[in-house]
Order: sequence, then structure tokens, then C-alpha cells
Amino acid sequence: MNEGGKSFPKEVILAEKFGRFKEHWRPKIIGEVNDFHVKIVKVQGSFEWHRHENEDELFLVTKGRMTIRLRERDIPLEEGELLVVPRGIEHMPVAADEAWVMLLEPKSTVNTGDAGGARTVSPEWI
Amino acid sequence: MNEGGKSFPKEVILAEKFGRFKEHWRPKIIGEVNDFHVKIVKVQGSFEWHRHENEDELFLVTKGRMTIRLRERDIPLEEGELLVVPRGIEHMPVAADEAWVMLLEPKSTVNTGDAGGARTVSPEWI
Repeated sequence: MNEGGKSFPKEVILAEKFGRFKEHWRPKIIGEVNDFHVKIVKVQGSFEWHRHENEDELFLVTKGRMTIRLRERDIPLEEGELLVVPRGIEHMPVAADEAWVMLLEPKSTVNTGDAGGARTVSPEWI
Repeated sequence: MNEGGKSFPKEVILAEKFGRFKEHWRPKIIGEVNDFHVKIVKVQGSFEWHRHENEDELFLVTKGRMTIRLRERDIPLEEGELLVVPRGIEHMPVAADEAWVMLLEPKSTVNTGDAGGARTVSPEWI
């Protein structure tokens, strides 16, 4: 699957894709499904409190563990666990040690949501 | 996450969800992300050749292995591998032994696509 996804379908090996980069908090696109992007990201430390006005966001931990902090409570996620953060809900992803995470979200989603700032990125295909 | 996803966000443990059913080829909904459903399905044997007119479909193998047969070639998928089958492309999922698979697809997706028939199901939340 390359950018635009118009070529012949090709399998994506998650471990191989994660092996291509080291930086944290910079999601990479690995697939598209209609108007959604499938992304992967390595996380460690704390991200920003933010929310997405119109987009729900799915986090699936594929290696390690992380926590999605919400204003009401923290939700820890182990490998093989996922969480959908509904649109409008403030959240802050954190991870004491590096974790590998798959994201599923509408293509319109900006990683920092309403917070913006220096950590905002335009994800590239990997 | 219950039907409609309007309650407070709750983590989903994939292994726990897979432990709740045994039957093959009957996807269950475990989450919604905007107009998409996240589903899980156990597969073994052969499904029908079919295509989805308007929906791309993501298969992610979380346990075991399966093959997505396409008219041009077969694409084997191991655990931790995913494939997006673009809309309009005929495909037939097969698995020699039982595999556990996560699906991401628009809510409008019918499991048997254009083929219809007895194996068509309306997925329920689990």
C-alpha cells in the first residue's frame, strides 16, 4: 500500500513499519480505509492535553503499555488493548516507557487537536 | 464502550472479547470511530468470493494466520500483519486453522458484500 492506496493491495507488516523510525509522537500513515487513515506511532513521555472537535480516535497498543489520561480518570492500556476516545473529550496520552501504538482516525484528524503548537505534524506515509 | 458508544470511554481487551464467542465468520462489533465500526471475527475454512462496492476493508490478524485470496494472487497474513482490500476488489478470506482477526470498515459494510446469501449477518455489539 503506497500513498493513495491505488496500487495492488499489499500486506503491511506492523513490526517492519515500526522498525523504520525511532522518534516519538510523530504518527506515520500505513494505510487508508475510505476516509480514514491507519497510522502507527511510537510514544514515550507525555503528550499535550487536547481534543478533536469532530473526530473519534482509536488507540490500539501493539507493544508495551500506555495510559490515556482523561479529565475524569486515567485509562491504562496494555498490549492488545484498545480505546476509542470520542470526539470532544479531552485526553492526554502518556507512556513511562516506549510503547508502539496503532491509530485509526478520520483523515482530517490533527495530532494535537485543538491544542496546536510545536508538536503538530502532518503525517507522512511510511 | 456499549452500543452507540455514548457512555464513558472504556478500554477494550481484545483477548477478552474474542473469548466471548466461538463461531466462525460472524463478525462482532467492539467499537465505533465516527462512521466506522471496529469488529472482530474468528475465521476458519473458506468464506465466499465477494466485493464491497463502496467500502474498503481492513483485516488485521491478531492470532494465527489467514490468507486473503484475490483474483490475481493470494496474500498470506501472519499475526501482526494487515491488509486493506480496496472497494470493488473481489476477495475470499480463507484460513486452514482458526485465526482471530480485527476488521475496520465503514458501518455500511455487509460481510458478504455483493455475494449475499446465507452467510450474511448483521453484526451485533459484543
